[in-house]
Amino acid sequence: MTGRRFLSTTASACNKYAAYVPKQGSYPKGYKVGAVSSGVKKNSQLDLSLIISEKPASAAAVFTTNKFKAAPVQLSKLVLEQTDKVQAIVINSGCANAVTGTKGLANAKEIVQAVDQLVTGSSASDKMSTLCMSTGVIGQQLSMDKILGAIPKLFKESLGSDHEHWLTCAKGIMTTDTFPKLVSKEISLNNHTYRIAGLSKGAGMICPNMATLLGFFVTDAPIEPKALQSILSYAVNRSFNSISVDGDMSTNDTIAALANGAAGGPAITESSGESYELIRDEITQFAQTLAQLVVRDGEGATKFVTIKIKDALSYEDAHQVGKTIANSPLVKTALYGKDANWGRILCAIGYSDVEVNTSKTNVSFVPADGSAELKLLVNGEPEVVDEERASQILQFEDLEISVDLGTGGGAETTFWTCDLSHEYITINGDYRS
Amino acid sequence: MTGRRFLSTTASACNKYAAYVPKQGSYPKGYKVGAVSSGVKKNSQLDLSLIISEKPASAAAVFTTNKFKAAPVQLSKLVLEQTDKVQAIVINSGCANAVTGTKGLANAKEIVQAVDQLVTGSSASDKMSTLCMSTGVIGQQLSMDKILGAIPKLFKESLGSDHEHWLTCAKGIMTTDTFPKLVSKEISLNNHTYRIAGLSKGAGMICPNMATLLGFFVTDAPIEPKALQSILSYAVNRSFNSISVDGDMSTNDTIAALANGAAGGPAITESSGESYELIRDEITQFAQTLAQLVVRDGEGATKFVTIKIKDALSYEDAHQVGKTIANSPLVKTALYGKDANWGRILCAIGYSDVEVNTSKTNVSFVPADGSAELKLLVNGEPEVVDEERASQILQFEDLEISVDLGTGGGAETTFWTCDLSHEYITINGDYRS
Repeated sequence: MTGRRFLSTTASACNKYAAYVPKQGSYPKGYKVGAVSSGVKKNSQLDLSLIISEKPASAAAVFTTNKFKAAPVQLSKLVLEQTDKVQAIVINSGCANAVTGTKGLANAKEIVQAVDQLVTGSSASDKMSTLCMSTGVIGQQLSMDKILGAIPKLFKESLGSDHEHWLTCAKGIMTTDTFPKLVSKEISLNNHTYRIAGLSKGAGMICPNMATLLGFFVTDAPIEPKALQSILSYAVNRSFNSISVDGDMSTNDTIAALANGAAGGPAITESSGESYELIRDEITQFAQTLAQLVVRDGEGATKFVTIKIKDALSYEDAHQVGKTIANSPLVKTALYGKDANWGRILCAIGYSDVEVNTSKTNVSFVPADGSAELKLLVNGEPEVVDEERASQILQFEDLEISVDLGTGGGAETTFWTCDLSHEYITINGDYRS
Repeated sequence: MTGRRFLSTTASACNKYAAYVPKQGSYPKGYKVGAVSSGVKKNSQLDLSLIISEKPASAAAVFTTNKFKAAPVQLSKLVLEQTDKVQAIVINSGCANAVTGTKGLANAKEIVQAVDQLVTGSSASDKMSTLCMSTGVIGQQLSMDKILGAIPKLFKESLGSDHEHWLTCAKGIMTTDTFPKLVSKEISLNNHTYRIAGLSKGAGMICPNMATLLGFFVTDAPIEPKALQSILSYAVNRSFNSISVDGDMSTNDTIAALANGAAGGPAITESSGESYELIRDEITQFAQTLAQLVVRDGEGATKFVTIKIKDALSYEDAHQVGKTIANSPLVKTALYGKDANWGRILCAIGYSDVEVNTSKTNVSFVPADGSAELKLLVNGEPEVVDEERASQILQFEDLEISVDLGTGGGAETTFWTCDLSHEYITINGDYRS
């Protein structure tokens, strides 16, 4: 097909992004993780990942709001209605098990029960303790033989707690991602050291309310289930729900969190005051790092763009303007073309359908090298833009667009997005083959 | 730049679409039209068009809802607040005169007054009788010397009422359009023959509520101003507000209508019963033809896609689902890649945020050759799709996607869109240069 040559750029992007793949990490205690190739994906690629907590862990999750929820989403919601503690997360890539009707749901359940049997020794359908996630093509049934055959092998031979195991686990959930997304860090709280690890996958169908986005945070901190859910919701709103690659929201997106308490210390609840806020803010910052990696690896992306919206009437308005700019194909193609066509940014603000003060709106480019911002619109009047300077600024991979809506409301937010390139079209025009 | 070679495809598209450019027409009486090159566009391209009615004509218009309304939109609204009859429409292409502050508004006014002086002999600012429109790059001031210098030449030397004049007028408003959009027809009403001509331009920034879309209908039928406005609003909702190329809504979009009554007959008002409905429906059908041409010539488009939404709870719901599918980059790239990835259509329905009955939803491809439809989803369960047949259907330039939401509400609508190609990226990554 016409654009085939662009695919080579995708391949070389793996090298370009090597800096974002960690060479070591500090991982939470009490977990074993890994991945194998089940044969769903071609060429023996890793496509089945498993995370196991040695003891039941507090569990929380945030799911897609798409009306056509994939079978694994429906099932994981059901699991969390039955219990607030689970011991495993199983993830397959290559097939989303979405829009697969009653058979798809039965298949997801069979996978969960197979994992439960190995982890807990029980496969009772009213006591499930595994969350499941799927990502890949929509509308196809899972190859159950392959997946059910691979689970015991994965469980017996491939799990571990070293850096390589975590990295392999992150690789097993990739679809069109060009690099595995894995981050970890240590935090100190109540005289204890806790570890958090996070994994995610992008890289298209990314839009607020998450998209074909799978992600998990696992920690050895002793966070109670209810507190974990509120921390996760808070963090996801300010991270995965503030990014956009293409504006499509998927049937499968799920962000889950496990906290097994293996590192000891007093239980953290919503009433824990400072400890609660501290770990909530740490997890939020951590989620933002992970979400930004998804944008940087957006399908075909050549630019990483931070959009700061200031002085909106409300947080919701600020979010809506950020989202509209982030999803505008004309803004995204101009960024790809390194064209300072800032009129398209204004245009997107104008149709975002929120209150703006058109005679007090300000827009600037903030260069990635820390040099002075370039003013484009000041109080609604266009600046005479130094095109050469604009062009210099647009050469950087990173760019910040600053938008002041001038409403007097003072609300603000940050959004992250990427550009729209020939390669996005190539990847998505031919995804299933 | 990387994708430059795709531009050759754009050029050849002119031949591809030759069938859509009329070789003759039947045009309304009492109008003179034409276009010249003012020098705003490079290479002596036509960039200034004028339509003049010999006597004052009933006038109506529908404008963009973008908060940053371009200067010509602000001014044309003002003109229609002062009067319901005008004698001219002036349109420049190459510069949108949008986000140009107070200077831009003063420039638009100066153009209107220059035309008024020539047409009516008066340039009083409280009695303007010209509508103005602009299309092109946002955020740049008009080259007033060039435009003011060209208006008298256009008025004295280039106006006429032959087919060639109408075609030249349509060419003068093109930006990235690959062919001029002009249609005309005769209708019989009250024992009179009336003629309608329509002109429009696309081809990017096209989204419901119209986008960088300029269009006009002019007729010699004696439609009263109030009736003309209600006919235009009705027609635009069912045509230009039901198309999408890329989901961006512009600062400039305007559809205007003139009716000068030059063909005689009794005045048509909203109380004219059958005559009113007949001409309203004729103009609506006419507007749909013109709107479909805009989609067919969408930037980089290789496909023309009709989306029929059935059994929604309300017309608004049906429209929202149609719009969401039409704007999904993943649906559009799959169509470009001739990939029957219908799961993406389901996914878009699911995030369109309207009521659907997921267990009664049906989706089919309806082939352009009139052969049997290909069922993809039946009552929420995926069909085993014959991929070879799907591939055959996707080879046609035209495709209909049929979506039945199964809500029992019975509301329906039709939406038109195109695919998203490498060429769209090329055109918009480098538009200003």
